[in-house]
Amino acid sequence: MKTFFPFLAMLIFATIQLNAQQALWGGTPIISPEVNSNKTVTFRFQAPNADSVFITGDFLPTAKYNSQWGEIDIPGRAMLVKDNNGTWSFTSAVLEPNLYSYSFIVDGLITTDPNNVYKVRDVASVFDVFIVDGGVADLYKVNQVPHGSVTRCWYNSPTLEKQRRITIYTPPGYENNNEKYPVLYLLHGMGGDEEAWIALGRTAQIIDNLIAQGKAQPMIVVMPNGNAAQEAAPGESSLGMYKPTMQLPNTMDGTYENSFKDIISFVENNYRVKAEKSCRAIAGLSMGGFHSLHISRFYPNTFDYVGLFSAAIMPDEKVKSKVYENFDETLSAQMNNGVQLYWIGIGKTDFLYQANVDYRKKLDSMGFKYMYIETEGGHTWDNWRKYLSEFATQIFPVKKF
Amino acid sequence: MKTFFPFLAMLIFATIQLNAQQALWGGTPIISPEVNSNKTVTFRFQAPNADSVFITGDFLPTAKYNSQWGEIDIPGRAMLVKDNNGTWSFTSAVLEPNLYSYSFIVDGLITTDPNNVYKVRDVASVFDVFIVDGGVADLYKVNQVPHGSVTRCWYNSPTLEKQRRITIYTPPGYENNNEKYPVLYLLHGMGGDEEAWIALGRTAQIIDNLIAQGKAQPMIVVMPNGNAAQEAAPGESSLGMYKPTMQLPNTMDGTYENSFKDIISFVENNYRVKAEKSCRAIAGLSMGGFHSLHISRFYPNTFDYVGLFSAAIMPDEKVKSKVYENFDETLSAQMNNGVQLYWIGIGKTDFLYQANVDYRKKLDSMGFKYMYIETEGGHTWDNWRKYLSEFATQIFPVKKF
Repeated sequence: MKTFFPFLAMLIFATIQLNAQQALWGGTPIISPEVNSNKTVTFRFQAPNADSVFITGDFLPTAKYNSQWGEIDIPGRAMLVKDNNGTWSFTSAVLEPNLYSYSFIVDGLITTDPNNVYKVRDVASVFDVFIVDGGVADLYKVNQVPHGSVTRCWYNSPTLEKQRRITIYTPPGYENNNEKYPVLYLLHGMGGDEEAWIALGRTAQIIDNLIAQGKAQPMIVVMPNGNAAQEAAPGESSLGMYKPTMQLPNTMDGTYENSFKDIISFVENNYRVKAEKSCRAIAGLSMGGFHSLHISRFYPNTFDYVGLFSAAIMPDEKVKSKVYENFDETLSAQMNNGVQLYWIGIGKTDFLYQANVDYRKKLDSMGFKYMYIETEGGHTWDNWRKYLSEFATQIFPVKKF
Repeated sequence: MKTFFPFLAMLIFATIQLNAQQALWGGTPIISPEVNSNKTVTFRFQAPNADSVFITGDFLPTAKYNSQWGEIDIPGRAMLVKDNNGTWSFTSAVLEPNLYSYSFIVDGLITTDPNNVYKVRDVASVFDVFIVDGGVADLYKVNQVPHGSVTRCWYNSPTLEKQRRITIYTPPGYENNNEKYPVLYLLHGMGGDEEAWIALGRTAQIIDNLIAQGKAQPMIVVMPNGNAAQEAAPGESSLGMYKPTMQLPNTMDGTYENSFKDIISFVENNYRVKAEKSCRAIAGLSMGGFHSLHISRFYPNTFDYVGLFSAAIMPDEKVKSKVYENFDETLSAQMNNGVQLYWIGIGKTDFLYQANVDYRKKLDSMGFKYMYIETEGGHTWDNWRKYLSEFATQIFPVKKF
């Protein structure tokens, strides 16, 4: 291989031209984060002249923060310590298996980790991520199992009068057989889009792994964009590269629910699906739970499986909106038509906890049967990944195929 | 809408729990970068206590840097100026239309822009990007035109004894008709993978836009992983979230060339393609140009269109490698079998310029006809996007369909 070196040197030279920032950065290569064999994690940051380097992230115990809405829990901070080379480091406690996110705070400024290329966007923020494996987190990893395909494509929505972008997971083997598959429609929360469940939710990995373990049926997972006013995720439409915002018009007023038939129609006309109620599931987180609740009663004989993950319920009786029209009638119709599984999951400290208590009371008073899961923690992707991992094993039982 | 407020306030409250970094960050919302109507760009960075904030990026005039290989050009820097609110800003000169990348340097430390969610990874670095529209850059934007689909899937490579990840663009309408399409195999450079042409190369946008303008034929674009030792891009295989490196074993020794039949076989068995020489093109940048050169002569009657973008040619006669065996015989065979277009593009300051001069001399001496384009600049994605935009209009002429 020695004879290759001059040529490789030239290519590396080219790389330095391309990545001059890295050349300017200098110093020895830093590994950060490093997940140690004992499940502690070491973070490193090269900053010889900084006065302080902290890390904040969801792997640290939470701290209290006085917001305008009172005291709230926020991710804690830990201080990194500088060595003689100007490299700051911090090693965490032993961490539970999970996918975690973090940022550094250097002399008071939030920054990403320049040595970690694994970043995810959540609304208008970008965080670094890492996985501590074991337990449920093994579902979030890419393992050596057959992999499904993930496609970003566009469908026509006559109701919204737009072409709209959508993400579709097809299970391993889909391309090589003539089978028809059940479909899970999986909806994001406010501020999210058709990228959220893939990036933050690790959906492709979770479904690949559950199928490989024989715990979930091979299924198609459809991840649409739930913002009725939006064609596509930020940067993926003709609006260009704008700064994303949390709230968009017409996301929770019935417009999206009413347009959902366009998505079902696109999927059932373009994919090999079992187009029947027993092979349709719908689930979503937060606003996507709201959408799942209402879509499933707007089309009350369409879905046999409904998942409400930390669902926004909108319990305020004073709120007037088209989306609530005929609420009781359509919910009764849905119940009377029959649902195989109506699944509700929420964290004990979720700000939507009470709304979910109230909604369950409503269901109880109607005699609408549901499955209820209560977990630790709040309104977090940690919970939503766990809910998907659980819900996906409960839908489309084997006897149906 | 007023009645919505209490609920929205609760959701915003939740957002603050999720994005506590943003809450800690405080201050007024910053827009950065802001592309102004006169095609200058304003960058902003909130850092009341910083002593200096610079920006570096490929939109700035280059500077000289003394590397271990002598003086090289590196991206220049510009200083931001602080206002009374602690917001630093800089407005660029009027910029030519293009996609640009940049980073901030805060008190000597490279950092990403916390107000820009549009970032791309190149090998082990993550940069912020923006587009100044007009001219060729209008091909790089998402426009209101019909969009193709982009699929990440896995294929079996018996030759490499691996399942491998691959990115495939299918043109608008592919799902809704029974037509067969020509195929462009598009290969990345060293340090790249099956994500490079989509993320840095803007391939989906370029092909969507050229098709919409009637300048390119509807085609399938296949973007494989050219690192023979690798299953998938960093983070997308069972190796997990490791720090990417530039060089991998067996990337330029003939192993990959020899395995390329597995990719063609996968594509032709799983997609509706015109499986004939006149409907196959292969092109690549740098190492991918090397691969395209060699693959097209390893299979000398397979491709009617070959594109070498800033191609590594490996001109050193002393280098012994399996990949060079029967070089002249197979290249002659390729020429004699006929090639509709053998396209070579390189930048005037590219470190591979002389190697391309020498290779063209070799082709000339054989009587192998080619098209040659020389551009400003060097070994950059700016050039490779332009080469793709040009090459894609030259392949699969209408008369063939």
